Amino acid sequence: MKKGVFITIEGGEGAGKSTLIEQLSNTMLQRGKSVLMTREPGGIPIAEQIRAVILDRSNVTMDARTEALLYAAARRQHLVEKVVPALEQGHIVICDRFVDSSLAYQGHARGLGMDEVWAINRFAIQELMPDLTIYMDVSPDVGLERIAQASEREINRLDLEKHSFHEKVREGYMQLLQQNPDRIVLVNAEQSQQTVFDDVLQAIENRFAGFFATDVKFKGMV
Amino acid sequence: MKKGVFITIEGGEGAGKSTLIEQLSNTMLQRGKSVLMTREPGGIPIAEQIRAVILDRSNVTMDARTEALLYAAARRQHLVEKVVPALEQGHIVICDRFVDSSLAYQGHARGLGMDEVWAINRFAIQELMPDLTIYMDVSPDVGLERIAQASEREINRLDLEKHSFHEKVREGYMQLLQQNPDRIVLVNAEQSQQTVFDDVLQAIENRFAGFFATDVKFKGMV
Repeated sequence: MKKGVFITIEGGEGAGKSTLIEQLSNTMLQRGKSVLMTREPGGIPIAEQIRAVILDRSNVTMDARTEALLYAAARRQHLVEKVVPALEQGHIVICDRFVDSSLAYQGHARGLGMDEVWAINRFAIQELMPDLTIYMDVSPDVGLERIAQASEREINRLDLEKHSFHEKVREGYMQLLQQNPDRIVLVNAEQSQQTVFDDVLQAIENRFAGFFATDVKFKGMV
Repeated sequence: MKKGVFITIEGGEGAGKSTLIEQLSNTMLQRGKSVLMTREPGGIPIAEQIRAVILDRSNVTMDARTEALLYAAARRQHLVEKVVPALEQGHIVICDRFVDSSLAYQGHARGLGMDEVWAINRFAIQELMPDLTIYMDVSPDVGLERIAQASEREINRLDLEKHSFHEKVREGYMQLLQQNPDRIVLVNAEQSQQTVFDDVLQAIENRFAGFFATDVKFKGMV
């Protein structure tokens, strides 16, 4: 039985998800929350192995449907081994990317269709949808420029996709936002780091009234 | 556009699929047929990498849904890179295991549900179902005894599953047979090799009249 709160952070390349997640994690810990920050494959060996196949730059013949099935497989294993146990123990779980990424990237941008990609993700996650999803919105121009300047991380296969692909990703997210107005909140990620962070905290407060106000451990959605 | 003929061979462990496929291949070549014998992952590097994750005996925490998604992913890549090009060139493709294996093993025997497993396989194969499926029926007692005696191949994770699992696999195949009487033909695989082989040739003749009678290249189902 789920007792914790499940929050996902979504967005295109260079939206600033990593920075946000670090700030969010620090703030929650300071306020006495019990938080698990994670992202697929999240150190789960089986999910790591699957992710290595996806990101292997020599796998140039990979079909878009194969890729979507592999993402769903890694998601399943990460969920079962890491997210579900944490939620059952009453933790707040913040996950960097989840089903919406597959729907926006594979479903919309690669043209497989959102319904098709949803079918395999429904199989992977069963009923476990996030309680809240923050969508960090950034234009491809700004996002890709940020990536080019960040020398810390290696450029992977996805970064090499062309600009129009990132436009399609953004379109996909916009459709998801329209279809899930209660779950997904858009935050303008082109603002200053501090403003973005304030907007995100506000979105969490709006969704879970009293989340930061109390210093007793938040008991989730039960 | 598909011009060839797509035949799949199914059955539990120790049913004698490999022997049958070798005999079938020889006979077809003798009769001037252009045949591709294959099985997933079939030397397709991406599918091989995925299969290695599934069969890695150290992956003991692998969830049944993760496994089913990985099988579907390897299936997709093998289909796109190997089966479809051969069918488009008008070849006969004989594949050792296909969707029915996932439905019988993961769907029925592991209890995920045939409909659920069909959803992800439909995504993987789209419309490309076999023209004919031969189901080699053998009791688990006979099948597992054959495996124990065959020293040639390494015992893998699936072989280690207990006897009742193989009973469930057989039940799953029986359900598929009932649901797909036009596509799937049962052959009693406990008979002598020669009788099994004769039954299989007869099943192919029954399904594709004149398949072996002519010496012109068979043009498929068009």
